[in-house]
Amino acid sequence: MIQEVLISTINAEGETHIAPMGVHVDANQLIVLPFKPSLTLDNLLQTKTAAINYSDDVRIFAGCVTGRRDWPLLPTECINGNYLADALAHTEVKLEQLEDDSVRPRLFCTRLHSVNHKPFQGFNRAQYSVLEAAILVSRLGRLPWEKISSELDYLRIGLEKTGGDREWQAWGWLMQAIEEYRLNSEDL
Amino acid sequence: MIQEVLISTINAEGETHIAPMGVHVDANQLIVLPFKPSLTLDNLLQTKTAAINYSDDVRIFAGCVTGRRDWPLLPTECINGNYLADALAHTEVKLEQLEDDSVRPRLFCTRLHSVNHKPFQGFNRAQYSVLEAAILVSRLGRLPWEKISSELDYLRIGLEKTGGDREWQAWGWLMQAIEEYRLNSEDL
Repeated sequence: MIQEVLISTINAEGETHIAPMGVHVDANQLIVLPFKPSLTLDNLLQTKTAAINYSDDVRIFAGCVTGRRDWPLLPTECINGNYLADALAHTEVKLEQLEDDSVRPRLFCTRLHSVNHKPFQGFNRAQYSVLEAAILVSRLGRLPWEKISSELDYLRIGLEKTGGDREWQAWGWLMQAIEEYRLNSEDL
Repeated sequence: MIQEVLISTINAEGETHIAPMGVHVDANQLIVLPFKPSLTLDNLLQTKTAAINYSDDVRIFAGCVTGRRDWPLLPTECINGNYLADALAHTEVKLEQLEDDSVRPRLFCTRLHSVNHKPFQGFNRAQYSVLEAAILVSRLGRLPWEKISSELDYLRIGLEKTGGDREWQAWGWLMQAIEEYRLNSEDL
């Protein structure tokens, strides 16, 4: 099972990096699979720790793929690092084992500490629309425009029916990024 | 903003009814909009209370639209009723005002009590696929087959990439219901 989360790691200078990622989850461990190159990979190899943030604020997912990576942080409790102040819950993990790969290494992590901050508020279809659109934005150069356009039309339905302010703001950032990509592509 | 939740209500005999529903959420209240006829509506008008369950177990959503309504319950704390044992969180509400309507009355409810049971585990694209497919199943008689079929093809991608056991079981129930509907439609 893969959960879409936000991973926060620090480098040797103590600077935090936030990245949206799908992590493989089972009862005993979390497997993080960053594509190379990746600051998350570099930081995890260096510090051997990370915070897995479970947030329903889709602005952070959309923000990270559109250059908005500055989100409020709080210090983690059992590792040296930070978690997202907005997270509903977070888990602090330790890197146990690395299966290296030229494209996508597998980092096996165990849970050190978990905190339940705020209650889950139920499913929101607009949040998934934003999440799927953020995934499309992260693959803009690799997908045909027709596919992107038809998927966005479908995803817009859930957004319009169920979105709140956060979801609309996140969607706006993503649509702006897509528009800029299209304009730049036409110049080529 | 609309959140997809499971509402549990009781009737005069104390029998619990569970129904998936989209509720309108704002800072002060929750607005429940059941289509008539609806056991949730009958029960809410009678008892003036309900439990709003925030669960990420999509089997309950898929189960309720395919005739599987028997899910483990626990007694609520401030109202006479039950909440879903599997809920990550739940809120007990009181009906304050009714705007009646021949199709879809609006029930304005205030929060009496909220409990945060278990941490949110992040977004799962397969859960969203099941949720959207459950909405399709609830509208089988009203949507053209082409639309249902193409949406299922899209939703299946997220399921296959990210689903766990619960999501696959829920998806199976929904696909069985769609298959049975198609076979019955061909007989007409």
